[in-house]
Amino acid sequence: MVTLLTDFGQQDEYVGVMKGVILRVNPAVQLVDLCHEIPPGDLERAGRLLNWSWRYFPDGTVHVAVVDPGVGSERKILCVERDGHRFLAPDNGILSWVLQGAGRVRVRWVRQKRYFLPQISHTFHGRDILAPVAGHLSMGLPPVRLGPILHSYARLSPDPAYHWEGTRLQGRILQWDRFGNAVTSIPAHEIERLKPTSRLEVWVRGRPVNGLRRFYAEGKPGSPLALIGSRGLLEMAVHRGSVRRRLNLRIGDRVEVRRR
Amino acid sequence: MVTLLTDFGQQDEYVGVMKGVILRVNPAVQLVDLCHEIPPGDLERAGRLLNWSWRYFPDGTVHVAVVDPGVGSERKILCVERDGHRFLAPDNGILSWVLQGAGRVRVRWVRQKRYFLPQISHTFHGRDILAPVAGHLSMGLPPVRLGPILHSYARLSPDPAYHWEGTRLQGRILQWDRFGNAVTSIPAHEIERLKPTSRLEVWVRGRPVNGLRRFYAEGKPGSPLALIGSRGLLEMAVHRGSVRRRLNLRIGDRVEVRRR
Amino acid sequence: MVTLLTDFGQQDEYVGVMKGVILRVNPAVQLVDLCHEIPPGDLERAGRLLNWSWRYFPDGTVHVAVVDPGVGSERKILCVERDGHRFLAPDNGILSWVLQGAGRVRVRWVRQKRYFLPQISHTFHGRDILAPVAGHLSMGLPPVRLGPILHSYARLSPDPAYHWEGTRLQGRILQWDRFGNAVTSIPAHEIERLKPTSRLEVWVRGRPVNGLRRFYAEGKPGSPLALIGSRGLLEMAVHRGSVRRRLNLRIGDRVEVRRR
Repeated sequence: MVTLLTDFGQQDEYVGVMKGVILRVNPAVQLVDLCHEIPPGDLERAGRLLNWSWRYFPDGTVHVAVVDPGVGSERKILCVERDGHRFLAPDNGILSWVLQGAGRVRVRWVRQKRYFLPQISHTFHGRDILAPVAGHLSMGLPPVRLGPILHSYARLSPDPAYHWEGTRLQGRILQWDRFGNAVTSIPAHEIERLKPTSRLEVWVRGRPVNGLRRFYAEGKPGSPLALIGSRGLLEMAVHRGSVRRRLNLRIGDRVEVRRR
Repeated sequence: MVTLLTDFGQQDEYVGVMKGVILRVNPAVQLVDLCHEIPPGDLERAGRLLNWSWRYFPDGTVHVAVVDPGVGSERKILCVERDGHRFLAPDNGILSWVLQGAGRVRVRWVRQKRYFLPQISHTFHGRDILAPVAGHLSMGLPPVRLGPILHSYARLSPDPAYHWEGTRLQGRILQWDRFGNAVTSIPAHEIERLKPTSRLEVWVRGRPVNGLRRFYAEGKPGSPLALIGSRGLLEMAVHRGSVRRRLNLRIGDRVEVRRR
Repeated sequence: MVTLLTDFGQQDEYVGVMKGVILRVNPAVQLVDLCHEIPPGDLERAGRLLNWSWRYFPDGTVHVAVVDPGVGSERKILCVERDGHRFLAPDNGILSWVLQGAGRVRVRWVRQKRYFLPQISHTFHGRDILAPVAGHLSMGLPPVRLGPILHSYARLSPDPAYHWEGTRLQGRILQWDRFGNAVTSIPAHEIERLKPTSRLEVWVRGRPVNGLRRFYAEGKPGSPLALIGSRGLLEMAVHRGSVRRRLNLRIGDRVEVRRR
């Protein structure tokens, strides 16, 4: 099984061609598109999305992530092994979220050219390197055959996430989802410490939103609310609407949870 | 075989994660995306799209529909059996079109938790309930194991569709397709009663369009025409253009077929 | 294995329904979406995309291309065999690029109705003809069973591509990719004749861009450059930006490569 995560969009042949290359190596592979609508070069959004996804796939899945503005330069290609999953990606920090908090993890430098396409372009390593290597891994190739263990590789600072100001829990808006819901950096397990949740207030942009609710339909249509979203993070939302537009929010806006 | 229909769009990990969950239950499943671009919460568009699609799939297919603004509330999850196909969806009326005109049909309340994920969130039952249940159904689990038969469930008024005003056949514009073609609620078999079709007129917004034509290229580029579309419904279109923009039409506009 | 290339977009059920029809013929088929975001009726973009893709797929792959503004008219459906691949498409020139420079190629008229759906609409031959025929081909049906060899079929003038004005190599901008990179008609093997590449200049709209670079990150952010893209064609790009917007370029703009 191979998942694909890119910033290629869907108007070009890039994703289809990567699939063709994988299928030439392993015609029986199960291919899954994680997402191809990552904004060009947005390593953070891609890294988080991958981190929120991979655990739901079967052990042994190969996850290929190609957001690669440095393609063709000297940056390496990595193969990461974690908890029975394999990850292939450029060494540009995109795997920082997957590596975060990892127990046993192995990071390799993918440099054994026999598993690449015969011709390597300077502009599309997704096709020429990552796809064929993913095909071989999905056929059972042990990662040790790809190259040596690395101890140094790019890390982006994983989300500063949140911190406590006394009894106030503060974080930020990380991103929007399709519905205009605001995903924040504040994890549910920290909010637990402010129990009972019935007496919590969630503030953004100097005003409180209704919260903590359990689900979207607990809010009145048009009225902002906060809840624990499907990623285990605090979200703000508007039932049948977009909290992003309703409150004119921005990525990075500070969010605070406190007792009433 | 499992088909997926959602309003999740393609910028988030929601669809990919549902696929991961299904694949953990049934790694050999054939997954097909019906559509993920349903406008958020648009049960009508989703319900019609599913109704226009399922018959083309093999018997035994499991169709999962997740347009679910009420996720987390007390609304049930349904499993519908019809003509050898199985449908999983929230009990919010999205299956009204599939149930319409059905002969033998069984509707069940999906409540046997052993087929769910161990943790059920309040915000993503597509992942936590529908996906794993779809995986089990695709492995051969009999629907009877999911829960009891229901005799009462949500129904949206299926499209009022059309009616006769004397010898005039009247309906409405239901939706646009990607090409800007206007899909109406008037079925071909009713138009048959106005034969010969060479003497028909189709009116919208107080003006006649060229019709009834057989195919798009029978129209002059830029000139509106009417024909029977691939769903067996009257459509209006512009060859190499958009009738929606050309005539400034709106969803719900009345359409009339009559003899010249 | 079957690939699908259409201008259907992803908001309707068209692509899903084609897959259902294919799967009813061959439930074990491997389905790959090449692209469904071709602008409506854009045969050139579709034809080039297919030409840039098919060689990356395994021998025996069936490639289905449905950009078909003439659906329902007398235009034929073609089956092309080339280098172990099979192509199904309307006879409207969409396969011109695949046929270009072909050695041994066979073009057939697909007219054996036993492999079609029982009912043929006038508006969706992708579903009624191409999909079921693709299913049968993927099951091993020999193309000879589909219909007779054709010697005359539609050809679009393949891209005028490029020409030499003395020692100046001239071509045009063919299209944009998702990143706003400009794909030109000038092939790498012609540029080779102007070696050494370190002394080349690339001009567009009366001004030189930095080139020839090897990869995107060799450019300064915001600054236009030229390089050989993944299709073996000259591209113009802006590292972490869009050359299209940066230089306000248009499809068809002339591009020139010359010695400094």
